[in-house]
Amino acid sequence: MNDRVFNFNAGPGTLPEAALAQAALDIVNYRGRGLGIMEMSHRSKEFMAIADQTEALLRELMAIPDTYRVLFLQGGASSQFFMVPMNLLATGGTATYLDTGTWATKAIKEAQQFGTIDVAFSGKAENYRRIPRPDEYRIDEDSSYLYLVSNNTIFGTQFAVFPDTTKMLVADMSSDILSRPIDVDRFGLIFAGAQKNLGPAGVTIVIVRDDLLERTPDSVPTMLRYKTHADKGSMFNTPPCFAIYVVGEVLKWLKAQGGVSAMAERNEEKARLLYRVIDSSHYYRGHAASDSRSRMNIAFNLPSAELEAKFVAEATEQGMIGLKGHRSVGGCRASIYNAFPIDGVRRLVAFMEDFAGANPA
Amino acid sequence: MNDRVFNFNAGPGTLPEAALAQAALDIVNYRGRGLGIMEMSHRSKEFMAIADQTEALLRELMAIPDTYRVLFLQGGASSQFFMVPMNLLATGGTATYLDTGTWATKAIKEAQQFGTIDVAFSGKAENYRRIPRPDEYRIDEDSSYLYLVSNNTIFGTQFAVFPDTTKMLVADMSSDILSRPIDVDRFGLIFAGAQKNLGPAGVTIVIVRDDLLERTPDSVPTMLRYKTHADKGSMFNTPPCFAIYVVGEVLKWLKAQGGVSAMAERNEEKARLLYRVIDSSHYYRGHAASDSRSRMNIAFNLPSAELEAKFVAEATEQGMIGLKGHRSVGGCRASIYNAFPIDGVRRLVAFMEDFAGANPA
Repeated sequence: MNDRVFNFNAGPGTLPEAALAQAALDIVNYRGRGLGIMEMSHRSKEFMAIADQTEALLRELMAIPDTYRVLFLQGGASSQFFMVPMNLLATGGTATYLDTGTWATKAIKEAQQFGTIDVAFSGKAENYRRIPRPDEYRIDEDSSYLYLVSNNTIFGTQFAVFPDTTKMLVADMSSDILSRPIDVDRFGLIFAGAQKNLGPAGVTIVIVRDDLLERTPDSVPTMLRYKTHADKGSMFNTPPCFAIYVVGEVLKWLKAQGGVSAMAERNEEKARLLYRVIDSSHYYRGHAASDSRSRMNIAFNLPSAELEAKFVAEATEQGMIGLKGHRSVGGCRASIYNAFPIDGVRRLVAFMEDFAGANPA
Repeated sequence: MNDRVFNFNAGPGTLPEAALAQAALDIVNYRGRGLGIMEMSHRSKEFMAIADQTEALLRELMAIPDTYRVLFLQGGASSQFFMVPMNLLATGGTATYLDTGTWATKAIKEAQQFGTIDVAFSGKAENYRRIPRPDEYRIDEDSSYLYLVSNNTIFGTQFAVFPDTTKMLVADMSSDILSRPIDVDRFGLIFAGAQKNLGPAGVTIVIVRDDLLERTPDSVPTMLRYKTHADKGSMFNTPPCFAIYVVGEVLKWLKAQGGVSAMAERNEEKARLLYRVIDSSHYYRGHAASDSRSRMNIAFNLPSAELEAKFVAEATEQGMIGLKGHRSVGGCRASIYNAFPIDGVRRLVAFMEDFAGANPA
C-alpha cells in the first residue's frame, strides 16, 4: 500500500491499513466460512462473537465500568442531539449546555424541544476559538446534566480537562474518543459517531450509565429508547453489522499499538510538531486560543485566501489531501486522528516550511 | 470463489459475488485514489458521484417518477415504523394497517403513539398464513393511508397484487424490493432496509412522494423529518457511505442481469422449483396458503421437529446454511432473494427429495 495518500480529512478520515487489509479478505470470505462478513446473519454465532469482542475491546481500552452499557446505534452523532434530551430530560426539566461550536449549537437546538436549555457559555462572539474556563459559567442546581462537545472539529478546540463538577456530564466525543485516557465514571453518557477515530460512518457508540436507562418517558418510540437497545445487546433490530466489524478491527489495531495511553502520547507529539511550525512563524496563524488547542484538528490560516488555495492545491499534488478548512473558519485544517501516521505530519510540516519560504506574503 | 456456501439466511443474506469482489478492492484503494472507500469524505467529489449514481440506478431500475424523492437513511426499517406516522399522520388522524405478521404488528404498535390506527385485517388467528382478499377489509374514508408489508419474511407470505384502492399506500418492502416490477406511483411512501435485496445492513431506502414532505409537525426533531434529508440529498449529516456504495454495486449487478423484470422471472422460477417439491410430496408442508405464497421466503415443515433438526444439520454439512425457520413458525425456511443463485435452489430441491426418501416419517 505504498501508494497511500496522507488523508487529512475531518471525517470520514484515514483508517488503519491493517484493518482495511483484513476487511478486504473478510468481505469476500469470512475466515473460511464460505460467505462474506456482510452476508452473515446478525444472529449467527460468528457475528455474535464479533459484536461481543468489539464491545469487550472497547470496554478494556476505555476502562468502562460494569455499571455502564455500551450500545452500537445508527443515525450518526446528530441523532444523539435529540435522543439525549428525549431520554434523559423529563418534560419540563433543565439541562446546561456549553456552546463551543457548530455541533454544540445543533445539539442545543434539538434539546430545546424537550425542556429548558441553559446555555451557560457561548463562544460564538469569538468565532468559537476557545473553550470556557471553569469560572466563566455556572451550572444551575436544578440542571439534569452538563452537556459538552469534548473536541470541536471545525474550530480546532478541545477540552484539555473536563469541568470539575458533581453534576453529571454528557459528552459528544465523536472526534476524540480513544485519543486520550478519560474517566468514564465522570460521565452519565458519552456518544461518538465512528467515522473519525473508530471506523466507518454508519455506527454510533453510546456509553450510558445503567440507571439512566429508566428515565425515558413512555411516549418515546421503541427504537429511540436507549433501554430497547441495552436490553437486546444492540440487536433489537439488525445492527449495522459491517460497521461494527470494522470498529472491532480498528480496536484490535489500537490495542496492538499500546492502547489509549500510547495513542495519547503519539497524538500529543503529532499535534506538537504542527503547532510548533505555526508558532515559530508569522506566516501561519492558528485559529484556536493556545489553551484550547485540539490535538485532533489543527485549524490555521495563511496570509491570504489566495495563498491558502495555492497551499491546498500544491499539498494535494504532493499526496496530502483534505487540508481545506471548514467554511466557518476558512483557511486550512489538518485532521490527525489516531490512525493518521506521524510520517504524514512530518511531511506536512516540511511542506509548510517550504511553502512559506517559496511564497512570501 | 468456488468455496462459497449457499446462504439461505433471511437477512443479512447472500450478496452478488461481483459486488463483493469489487468492494474488496475499493475498500483498500478506491480506483487508484490512494485511499479506501470508507476513508473518503462524504463531501468528496468521488463519494458524491457514487451517491448520485446509486440514486440514479435505483430510479432507473424501479422507474421512480420525478415527483418522488429517494432517501438513504439509517436506523433500519424498524425506525420507519415510527417515522412514517410521525411524519405523515397529523396528530389525531387515522391510518389503516393490515396486520400480516410480525413486522406489521410492530409497525402498528409504534404508529398508535401518533394517531388512531385502524387494524382492518389481522391474520393472527391463522398464524399469518395468508394475505387478505380485497373483500375482507374496508378502509375508513378518513384514513390518511393504507399501510402494508409487501412480503412477510417470517411467515413466507407476499402480496401477489397490491390493494386496488384510491387510498394512498405506504409499504414496507424490506424483503422484496427490486424483486419484481411495481408501480411506484401507487404508493405515497415505500421503505426498505437494505440487508435482503439491496446491500448490507446499515442503510434504509425511503422513496417518498414530494408533497408528503410538508406534512411533518414542527415538534419533530430535525433528524427524524424526511424533509431534512430530502433537502440535503441525504447528506444533512454523514451518511452510511460504505453501505450506500455497496448498494450501488448491487444495483450495477442487477442492471447487468437484465433489471427488475429479468429478476422477477428468475425469482418466479426459483420459487416454483421449491413449491413444486413441497406440493408433490406429503412429506413437506408449506406454511403459507397457496394464493399468498412468497417468492422470497419459503417456509415449510417436515413430519416432525426431530426430522426438521436433522434436515437443517445435514443441509448445513452439505454447504446449504441458514435453513432453520423462525421460531414463530418452526420448521425450515429458504430465503431466496435476488442474489441467491438458481443452482443453490436446485441443490436444495435435490437434497429435499433425497432426504424425504432416506428419512421416512
